[in-house]
Amino acid sequence: MNVPATVSDYLNRRAQEVNAWLDALVPSETAPPEQLHRAMRYSLMAGGKRLRPALVLAAGEALGASTDDLMPTACAIEMIHTYSLIHDDLPAMDNDDLRRGRPTCHKVFGEAMAILAGDALLTQAFRVLSAEAPSGNAAIQLRVIREVATASGTADALIGGQVADIENEGHTVDAQTLEYIHRSKTGALITASVVVGGILAGASERKVDALRSYGERIGLAFQIADDLLDVTSTSEELGKTPGKDQAANKATYPAIHGISASQDKAAQLVEEAVQIVSDLGVDSGVLSDIARFIVARRS
Amino acid sequence: MNVPATVSDYLNRRAQEVNAWLDALVPSETAPPEQLHRAMRYSLMAGGKRLRPALVLAAGEALGASTDDLMPTACAIEMIHTYSLIHDDLPAMDNDDLRRGRPTCHKVFGEAMAILAGDALLTQAFRVLSAEAPSGNAAIQLRVIREVATASGTADALIGGQVADIENEGHTVDAQTLEYIHRSKTGALITASVVVGGILAGASERKVDALRSYGERIGLAFQIADDLLDVTSTSEELGKTPGKDQAANKATYPAIHGISASQDKAAQLVEEAVQIVSDLGVDSGVLSDIARFIVARRS
Repeated sequence: MNVPATVSDYLNRRAQEVNAWLDALVPSETAPPEQLHRAMRYSLMAGGKRLRPALVLAAGEALGASTDDLMPTACAIEMIHTYSLIHDDLPAMDNDDLRRGRPTCHKVFGEAMAILAGDALLTQAFRVLSAEAPSGNAAIQLRVIREVATASGTADALIGGQVADIENEGHTVDAQTLEYIHRSKTGALITASVVVGGILAGASERKVDALRSYGERIGLAFQIADDLLDVTSTSEELGKTPGKDQAANKATYPAIHGISASQDKAAQLVEEAVQIVSDLGVDSGVLSDIARFIVARRS
Repeated sequence: MNVPATVSDYLNRRAQEVNAWLDALVPSETAPPEQLHRAMRYSLMAGGKRLRPALVLAAGEALGASTDDLMPTACAIEMIHTYSLIHDDLPAMDNDDLRRGRPTCHKVFGEAMAILAGDALLTQAFRVLSAEAPSGNAAIQLRVIREVATASGTADALIGGQVADIENEGHTVDAQTLEYIHRSKTGALITASVVVGGILAGASERKVDALRSYGERIGLAFQIADDLLDVTSTSEELGKTPGKDQAANKATYPAIHGISASQDKAAQLVEEAVQIVSDLGVDSGVLSDIARFIVARRS
């Protein structure tokens, strides 16, 4: 499967916009504490795909929100994603040396500063989320914060997924446990990205529910694709150490279900997701393209 | 100086109320991920003084807010305080074995779980802060979140203070740097506790400003008293390793200014704080008593 040029172009364009906003929304490297701000920016501005912000923008704009109203929330979610990567990479956790093609935060700035840079990105995310709501609708903004905090929390959420991942390392896990890990560790924040786009657009509960269903499907598809890339990619394509999951005896989709069944499952989830957003009665082209991109990407 | 029985009784009573709310506001140990929830509760329910929650309650009630409207915010701030202690105690940071009279979180649950328990308490704090505002005033709640996130952030705030503390370990610091560390690391969240009490009570800007001035003074007095206790206390009284600051060549107030001048400075700050709240035109008895308690306490 090839990624159509248009969605790649779209994501690159959105990533550039997001980067400009991120640059404005985190403290400068010249403001004290300089070394901490440097560590935060080192990891945040390392050139990720900005998939989560793109989903906030694509979902929100499809439902009628303005880019300016969506951007702070989009950037806050990227800060949370980056904090989770910094902490996951720590020696006490996954002990990873390479991330997004560069040495990990703690390899460059030391463990103490990496822990604090992660803490600071998480905190800054909520500071950005609680800044004056551009729409002036504080109730909507409060709901967005609640949605993001829940997706970043413990049960069926970001931190819970990382705990389950660590606890099951070196064990044989069943399909159900693996799906819990994927749904929590990656799926929850991806789903929240789509959902908050809808909430910020003032979408109906029915439409927010549909966005949640779409988000859950592409979230799981994303993680299956990630597992597949770990098996099939080179370090250069991936920007991080490939084969690492296997070496660590980590639970992955292809390890349990095989490569072919994993590819089929991811494709099926994407088609379901595309169907769901095409029933929304809005221009869902970008959301469909992003869903397809998620399984077709090479890194 | 002796602590009057009344303020001790007051703080003990508020601590019990706060503990009951905290128990309800963090996930159960029987809910997955169990081990993470256990680690969160181990540190959170270890019997701290609950000074910050007491300040939220005392300031808010003095200005007319109900206890029920104040408690979620009071508990969220205690969660943030506890997360900062868990991360500060990590081997990569202060490497402390003892906290509140018990082995530190990472000594019991391991480093990975301690990092994640800290992350989870910080995240849960914002989840609690963004729950339906009991007063139904979302704009007020959003301002509270902004105040707490700012006090927990990098510049002149919790994380920035810890960075400066680490960066200056083993160096001789001047009085100005020491005051920056104290104001940021301890002062910011104590000040925010008082301020959000006022905000939740719907106090005027003038009164919120006065509460901030009070908070800044007792925040610095608290840290000076802490430094003094590290010099003058036993391990049993303190519940953590005394003399640790000196051994680590940490910047402390008595190390720079001497014990006697430090005691005078703390007493002066407290009297200023008492004067400020007595000018508020409300019943400021509890706030005055807490200010005096802060320098008179033995642990």
